[in-house]
Amino acid sequence: MRLINTNQKILIVGLGLLGGSYAKALTKKGFHVSAITRSEKSINYAMNKGWIEKGSAFVDPNLISEADIVIFCLYPTTFIEWIKTNQQLFKSGAVLTDVTGVKGAVVDTIQEMLRPDVEFISAHPMAGREVSGVENSDDRIFHNANYIVTPTGRNTPEAIELCRDLGVILGFARISTLAPEDHDEIIAFVSQLTHCIAVSLMTCQRTEHLEDYTGDSFRDLTRIARLNDEMWSELFLLNKEPLLKQMRLFEDELARMRGLLESGDREGLREMMRYSTERRALFDKTL
Amino acid sequence: MRLINTNQKILIVGLGLLGGSYAKALTKKGFHVSAITRSEKSINYAMNKGWIEKGSAFVDPNLISEADIVIFCLYPTTFIEWIKTNQQLFKSGAVLTDVTGVKGAVVDTIQEMLRPDVEFISAHPMAGREVSGVENSDDRIFHNANYIVTPTGRNTPEAIELCRDLGVILGFARISTLAPEDHDEIIAFVSQLTHCIAVSLMTCQRTEHLEDYTGDSFRDLTRIARLNDEMWSELFLLNKEPLLKQMRLFEDELARMRGLLESGDREGLREMMRYSTERRALFDKTL
Repeated sequence: MRLINTNQKILIVGLGLLGGSYAKALTKKGFHVSAITRSEKSINYAMNKGWIEKGSAFVDPNLISEADIVIFCLYPTTFIEWIKTNQQLFKSGAVLTDVTGVKGAVVDTIQEMLRPDVEFISAHPMAGREVSGVENSDDRIFHNANYIVTPTGRNTPEAIELCRDLGVILGFARISTLAPEDHDEIIAFVSQLTHCIAVSLMTCQRTEHLEDYTGDSFRDLTRIARLNDEMWSELFLLNKEPLLKQMRLFEDELARMRGLLESGDREGLREMMRYSTERRALFDKTL
Repeated sequence: MRLINTNQKILIVGLGLLGGSYAKALTKKGFHVSAITRSEKSINYAMNKGWIEKGSAFVDPNLISEADIVIFCLYPTTFIEWIKTNQQLFKSGAVLTDVTGVKGAVVDTIQEMLRPDVEFISAHPMAGREVSGVENSDDRIFHNANYIVTPTGRNTPEAIELCRDLGVILGFARISTLAPEDHDEIIAFVSQLTHCIAVSLMTCQRTEHLEDYTGDSFRDLTRIARLNDEMWSELFLLNKEPLLKQMRLFEDELARMRGLLESGDREGLREMMRYSTERRALFDKTL
């Protein structure tokens, strides 16, 4: 039995790339979706596309009080501020969820301040694009992607189940559950460290016309070097310790490889490459 | 006026992924293509596919002496050995070219030892796949790719032009010319360093089941972490100094980013990200 049904009203707060993609996917599945976001233009865009039934560019008490599920698609710090200011407006029994990319700095803070008759169950949809804004929304970004639910001891089994169901309805390829601190450690590695690498690769050289001599490998490694600096700097700083740890781990390994090259240790290099090849194969099979 | 015409006979030495893709593309364009490679199976495969007219699993003097253009698709050290052993078999006036990924260690050596009535003009097709062997050949890998001709003072304008024309005929998106030492410096950065990063990222963590939590960014950055260890260790060691230089450059930049994070310098991080974003945009426009 699904705990989500299409009679429930869903409110999306923050109508950017992800919020818009959620709205589109959920409307397609027959849900009643409304949105609150700062920009009137974004509301109009989503209304014209038929992704939302109602929308408001201000914090509309009516939209909030009628919502059974509220999905926050805001930057972490904005999200916390929003809850602080507006939580009195939620319907009693409402379930809140989010799309925030770091959990340690968010989940406890919100669960601690939240009204006891409302529940926050956090999730991280690992999907995105190099472009932002509701105009670039695309629900297909979920279809090959992972969706991670990060419950704490404060969450009820029902809310956890509802949040997982939401991931299924959105069309994610794989739904998993992690404690917030495990999530942050893994995300520091698979997502934040990769962005650090891409950015550093893009900025370490100022040679002009490099693009004339570039193969697929460089393009692949720097695709994510185009990023929203406001969002990513916030995510990095909110996950500072886990990210620093992963950066050091990677730096040590790259220095080890450089050492093998310096000493002309061909067998050492080959062994590293063979292990890399074998390990990478696992990542092809999964999706 | 094209210096290449379809009356000329082309011999490919080394029928792996690239050799096979060359054979397929050139046969499609109406050339007479033959091949020499160690494996009888590879010859049969290419014959059955109609990619070559003739082939031999040994060094057949007839195939060599009738070729106007010989394209070497061998590992660098094997290529040098082959020339040393077999160069007496070339037709006088033949033009030789190659696909070797490093130039400093190859071009001079071969040009110095080569008969004066034969010319070697080196080129680097920046195309490949994560899989190897003639069975994985695909001439579409050239269509979005760069092709770099690396002439020296010993080359004639005619041979340089012929080699560029070959790139056009193969269907490369962009043909450029670089001195061998400039080529090696750029390749150390855009190709070899990226492979070092991908391998180190893949091997620095032994956490199991990471693939369950992986987004596109990690997949993109590690696509090339599946690699042919025999070939890549040889390429790295033959281009050791330029690669070490680029590795250090990247390591310094990543350490700088870590420093910004450690000291909580949000504006410094954002500035780096903005520069990265701006610079990466150049690489989208070109192809």
